[in-house]
Amino acid sequence: MDDSAVVDIPSGRLAITTDCYVVDPIFFPGGDIGMLAVNGTVNDLSVQGAQPLFLSAAFILEEGFGLADLERILVSMARASEEANVSIIAGDTKVVPKGKGDKIYINTTGVGLVQGGLDISGSNAKVLDKVILSGPIGDHGIAVLSQREGLAFDTDLRSDCGPLNHMVEEILAVTREIHTMRDPTRGGVAASLNEIAGQSKVGIVLVEGAIRVKDEVKSACEILGLDPLYVPNEGKLIVFVPPEHASQVLRAVRQNQHGGDAQIIGEVVADHPGRVVMRTTVGGTRIVDMPLGEQLPRIC
Amino acid sequence: MDDSAVVDIPSGRLAITTDCYVVDPIFFPGGDIGMLAVNGTVNDLSVQGAQPLFLSAAFILEEGFGLADLERILVSMARASEEANVSIIAGDTKVVPKGKGDKIYINTTGVGLVQGGLDISGSNAKVLDKVILSGPIGDHGIAVLSQREGLAFDTDLRSDCGPLNHMVEEILAVTREIHTMRDPTRGGVAASLNEIAGQSKVGIVLVEGAIRVKDEVKSACEILGLDPLYVPNEGKLIVFVPPEHASQVLRAVRQNQHGGDAQIIGEVVADHPGRVVMRTTVGGTRIVDMPLGEQLPRIC
Repeated sequence: MDDSAVVDIPSGRLAITTDCYVVDPIFFPGGDIGMLAVNGTVNDLSVQGAQPLFLSAAFILEEGFGLADLERILVSMARASEEANVSIIAGDTKVVPKGKGDKIYINTTGVGLVQGGLDISGSNAKVLDKVILSGPIGDHGIAVLSQREGLAFDTDLRSDCGPLNHMVEEILAVTREIHTMRDPTRGGVAASLNEIAGQSKVGIVLVEGAIRVKDEVKSACEILGLDPLYVPNEGKLIVFVPPEHASQVLRAVRQNQHGGDAQIIGEVVADHPGRVVMRTTVGGTRIVDMPLGEQLPRIC
Repeated sequence: MDDSAVVDIPSGRLAITTDCYVVDPIFFPGGDIGMLAVNGTVNDLSVQGAQPLFLSAAFILEEGFGLADLERILVSMARASEEANVSIIAGDTKVVPKGKGDKIYINTTGVGLVQGGLDISGSNAKVLDKVILSGPIGDHGIAVLSQREGLAFDTDLRSDCGPLNHMVEEILAVTREIHTMRDPTRGGVAASLNEIAGQSKVGIVLVEGAIRVKDEVKSACEILGLDPLYVPNEGKLIVFVPPEHASQVLRAVRQNQHGGDAQIIGEVVADHPGRVVMRTTVGGTRIVDMPLGEQLPRIC
């Protein structure tokens, strides 16, 4: 093989994103580090309104890591890239001594084509926008944590790890007037919304009852002392859309296999720019702060 | 910042390459892991005849890694990307617990624009091609090894780590009819030439006297029991060019600051396809085999 892969590309705007995946454990209910590495990078491109085209994949293996596990991960990556309709076109493998790594770390870098006429950015949320969330939160973080800590919650909770590019395509078929999209991974929905409020200099008001949390995630969070708003997701989409398109976009998201439980969870306001607040089910209001530091390490 | 960087790109063919850098030690005479991560990926694009445009950079840091060292590495990456005239446009940082990494690992992924009318590939070497090598071999490998093993050779040997894209541009200004280029990193000149002989199904004959090895590299190799042909380089170029263009290309390489000691080291023959042989200075012939496994781990 040559030192670079060569691919034909239409002219236009490219989106480029990179992530290292260091999740522990590498196999968890609903996924593994390979599937995560493909979907995570596909999703970072998708929320930019880019059609994912190509991925590179680079591996840092700890000496002694089993070939059977490596093969299982590679098969999983192949399946995930097929589902997301992207090609893995470049790769690299390095081996480090025992104790200088942890089984396997993966970097994926993605290149996508930004569709014309779009202006999607974290700094583009507008007052009156409706905020759509594509489903219940916290599944990925709790699935990984439970496996890692050996917690037996006696549930079949699985990570929501999945590709968002098809859902994004279906949304853009409804309207090109999407202001902001984000996939709430590290720091959960709370971090993503705080980032957007800050970048766009707007306030965001959430309605507590509209944010779905599965019972098993709720219970696990209570035991672990976590707030589901801060728990990472790996297959959820947040969309900021002008109110006149909200119900049609919501319908499109719900029709996607990964968005059946989508809800409008709040809206953008001119008050308290940079802040996210929540109207609680008991009629109060609380501030949803940016998380301090990284609460849950090695979830992705 | 948004989840992806967005850049404008002309239509055409893109080259994409990825590498993880795990060099030990992270600082060595003549360079560091950051400079290496930029130049290594710039060079993988360059040898494909691609003009490097953008890099992503992703970091896996071991808990407790010093911020001063990190800053030194980032400054070095900035300087290297300026020298190579590429932009680092996307990044990621993960932290792993102490003992699950080794200070810092870096992935860089590069995107370059393949210039029109080129057909450069490891499978494109042709009988009669001259083989040009841009300078003495083994500097990088021996510089890193000496530092790692605490060998005091009492020399000022430095890694040859540097960008090759300007040299490649100057070569392509002489002729577009370049068949193959490669930067002989892992496995050294021996591995690169064996790969090319195999991919192109041709034989390669080297002239021992034409391959320069600095005295300090020679001595170190004797002590360590290494053959310089198998020691990695990080700023050397191998070019396969039709004989009618060889002297002009050689002149262009020598005029570049990284190619002053360039030589024609051999040629392509129809005999023994897939094999590399060397005419030794004492008049004999020996086979230059593919290296078995990875002789020198964590050199890049």
